[in-house]
Amino acid sequence: MTTETDRKPRLMVLRIGHRIQRDVRVTTHVCLTARALGADGVIVTDAKDRRLSETIERVTSEFGGHFTVETGKPWRRALAEWHKAGGKVVHLTAYGMPLPKIIGEIRSSGEDKLVVVGAEKVPGELFHLADWNVAVTSQPISEVSALAIFLDWLFEHRRLEKGFADAKLRIIPTEHGKRVEKA
Amino acid sequence: MTTETDRKPRLMVLRIGHRIQRDVRVTTHVCLTARALGADGVIVTDAKDRRLSETIERVTSEFGGHFTVETGKPWRRALAEWHKAGGKVVHLTAYGMPLPKIIGEIRSSGEDKLVVVGAEKVPGELFHLADWNVAVTSQPISEVSALAIFLDWLFEHRRLEKGFADAKLRIIPTEHGKRVEKA
Repeated sequence: MTTETDRKPRLMVLRIGHRIQRDVRVTTHVCLTARALGADGVIVTDAKDRRLSETIERVTSEFGGHFTVETGKPWRRALAEWHKAGGKVVHLTAYGMPLPKIIGEIRSSGEDKLVVVGAEKVPGELFHLADWNVAVTSQPISEVSALAIFLDWLFEHRRLEKGFADAKLRIIPTEHGKRVEKA
Repeated sequence: MTTETDRKPRLMVLRIGHRIQRDVRVTTHVCLTARALGADGVIVTDAKDRRLSETIERVTSEFGGHFTVETGKPWRRALAEWHKAGGKVVHLTAYGMPLPKIIGEIRSSGEDKLVVVGAEKVPGELFHLADWNVAVTSQPISEVSALAIFLDWLFEHRRLEKGFADAKLRIIPTEHGKRVEKA
């Protein structure tokens, strides 16, 4: 029997404060991390960045899955739309509540999740708009690391070996060397 | 009774292929991740980068711990010295063996560990010099994420709330807002 709670909540990542020149590499790392660890897609504010979208879409087309990339959306609008549709917002910040203390509550909520990661400074308002402010360590850390560890914990450390649908290329685990198979 | 096996193995991170202009942000993320998640220090090849060292040393001086940063060392020499001193080398790469399958063996080895993370392309030789090639997902991912998840797993998901000795500043976990205390 399928009940409404069997629906898998959607999980999107919102990368805020992206500046094309300065942040392209780190934002690319955010997107690859989100995809590899099971998010459904990423929304990047504030600049439209076609090169970033193309890079990530190329990876998805080669290695599979249905990961979406949207750039250039103002963060307040993205948040407001998410809340309006009934979703919850998780903000990853060193100032928040420790991940081990709060992950159970987040995991057991059935709503769609928008996971927000900032570059350097984020607007103070965000701490109040978020449903949960979550600290992956209460130390200065990378938003890329924070996202990686958050997703790994959210999915109970079970996503690392999961494959992707429609992959054209597949990496074959090897002790010493590189092996890639074409589908 | 203290036996020799009670000694906690040293854990250092080797960041290879660092180019000052291109990689400064991502390498900073690697260093902050290594520190926050319990590594003892980082060695950065190939360029000497005083600004990077100063940034990380300032974080350590404010937030505590004894994290070391060394830049400008050739990677082959760093690896050779590590092996000569009896340490083991872990290379994080999407081509390696799945983390969940191999982490037990790495965790139970008592030797010091050098965890190698590359930028973009790494020399093929490295796959053969490493004692373990470890994949944090067999997908294109960030080396920052790979390092974060590897360290979290290595320390059995118990490091996230650990404090640091001699901190001048301490972040106080807060539901909605920012709170920092001076020691």
